[in-house]
Amino acid sequence: MENFDDTVFALGEVEALKRAVAIFKTVPSTLVGSGDDAAVVALNDHRMVVTTDTMVENHDFRTDFSTGFDLGFKAVASNLADLAAMGATPVALTVAMVVTKTTTQMWLEDFARGLQAGLDQLAPTAEIVGGDLASGEQIVIAVAAHGQLGDRQPVLRSGAKSGDIVAVAGTLGRAACGLDLLLHKDQSLAKAYDEWVAVQLRPNPPIQLGVEAGALATAMLDVSDSLALDVNRLAKASGVTIELSTGKLSGYAAVLELAAQSMTSRDGMERDPMDWVLFGGEDHSLLATFPESAALPRGFKAIGKVVGESAGLVLLDGQELSPKGWDSVSS
Amino acid sequence: MENFDDTVFALGEVEALKRAVAIFKTVPSTLVGSGDDAAVVALNDHRMVVTTDTMVENHDFRTDFSTGFDLGFKAVASNLADLAAMGATPVALTVAMVVTKTTTQMWLEDFARGLQAGLDQLAPTAEIVGGDLASGEQIVIAVAAHGQLGDRQPVLRSGAKSGDIVAVAGTLGRAACGLDLLLHKDQSLAKAYDEWVAVQLRPNPPIQLGVEAGALATAMLDVSDSLALDVNRLAKASGVTIELSTGKLSGYAAVLELAAQSMTSRDGMERDPMDWVLFGGEDHSLLATFPESAALPRGFKAIGKVVGESAGLVLLDGQELSPKGWDSVSS
Repeated sequence: MENFDDTVFALGEVEALKRAVAIFKTVPSTLVGSGDDAAVVALNDHRMVVTTDTMVENHDFRTDFSTGFDLGFKAVASNLADLAAMGATPVALTVAMVVTKTTTQMWLEDFARGLQAGLDQLAPTAEIVGGDLASGEQIVIAVAAHGQLGDRQPVLRSGAKSGDIVAVAGTLGRAACGLDLLLHKDQSLAKAYDEWVAVQLRPNPPIQLGVEAGALATAMLDVSDSLALDVNRLAKASGVTIELSTGKLSGYAAVLELAAQSMTSRDGMERDPMDWVLFGGEDHSLLATFPESAALPRGFKAIGKVVGESAGLVLLDGQELSPKGWDSVSS
Repeated sequence: MENFDDTVFALGEVEALKRAVAIFKTVPSTLVGSGDDAAVVALNDHRMVVTTDTMVENHDFRTDFSTGFDLGFKAVASNLADLAAMGATPVALTVAMVVTKTTTQMWLEDFARGLQAGLDQLAPTAEIVGGDLASGEQIVIAVAAHGQLGDRQPVLRSGAKSGDIVAVAGTLGRAACGLDLLLHKDQSLAKAYDEWVAVQLRPNPPIQLGVEAGALATAMLDVSDSLALDVNRLAKASGVTIELSTGKLSGYAAVLELAAQSMTSRDGMERDPMDWVLFGGEDHSLLATFPESAALPRGFKAIGKVVGESAGLVLLDGQELSPKGWDSVSS
């Protein structure tokens, strides 16, 4: 019987990769998959869209909170959200991994199952076409994701126009609430509100809705660092002023109210769920602007409006909103 | 005056990246470059070729041996060699980086200059189109490189046929000799033989020759882990027996003879330069097979022959050659 306590280190790169790669499904657009010097992928156009995102142990995740499966799923979800934010359909991903001397082959295969589950759920026509496995002092996951545009133009951050509706597809604040639940001294709370914890561990961005909305959106980006920061980025790139209203965001906060109260009842610290909605990251929802005249695409909910041109200003109920959020180097 | 001792950590991700990205040149094929959720790249075909390679501090490099510039150059060179080995012309690269709390902005910009210098020298029509900067306990560099095929078929490892000539473009053994010079207790030797040290620090793979040879090659791969190991991979993938001869490899060893003798004179340990040629990695030369009837492409030198079909056997002067080389996890 196979010993699943074997470390990746003991198996060596070739054998460890072979076993992990066996977990991945293949799709028809992959002309040459893993195993050669490079992969070859068929696209529906002469253009490719590419993004890369990195997750580092004890900085972006903790292995006592996240399983290998969770991390594989999250790595796929966060990268696919960047593609969807361009209006691009995901096609192929590469995964560069650093594992440690104690990483088990069982963990690596659980991670590979998480990658595949992320694709199954969010982009079943895409494939993990290649990767690299290296050794280091902490786990690092660097995914590069590739998409195609067909006959579409990419949706940039810079296209928002005065009068456009600002809208969101996906959740806001849940991932940040989930992280606070995981970090709370009363460990039972993470179990009681496991739905919010699940969004932190395995975010579920609306990939297909984003790709569909790409046909209509004037600007789009994925909310990874915080709503406040990412709206600010869109306003700056487009040279516009965006006005958000608390009233239109209150629904996102309301569902997190009970979790906030439970945390406060245990530690006496007051919490405003609206802080998670405005300043929390990692939901990987899609923020977009649409012409005022158009019906909002399926899955999008209006949260504000582009009210004029400027160097990039965001107002909440008429007050300037500070672009607070996650900085992946200094945080 | 700007203080170049500033750490990346102190500057934050956004400002640090902005300054580093300013170093990169742009090329016409990049339709959308750094700064949005993803980059968009024009290709000369409906297919993209993608490869990824990772370098980890104290496992794949040491910052007391390699400058930031060296590492940027090497990261580009090693990834481009994988593209060339498919016969693909490099178009675009993404760079995912992990830096530490002590990494200076000066180091990061030196690294960026090394990336650009690698492109200038090896693939001037390609661009660094995006990246990601994260924080961790050790430096990690994960590059994904993208190429295009035009009307060509990709050159796989599996196409070698009985009767084919086995040939190499680029150097063999120099990078391994350079590493032994760096590791030698007599530090003056690395200066005396700095040409071999330079191949270790900034390998110079024959990218353009590889792309040209792709029109004729029946199989190709880049020699990253060792000649013995990579010839074995080609033989296995193609299901052939390959016979190499020491006579045809002796020229690669001869130029390293003096460095070997100098090392031996300092520490009394005997060295055979042929060990570097056969079992040393990181020259990133291109190993290819060509039809017997054809003239070898520019830059390629015959080192052996495909002598028959098998499960994958490599002979050196009639004796089986052990596939020893670098394993990036267990080494």
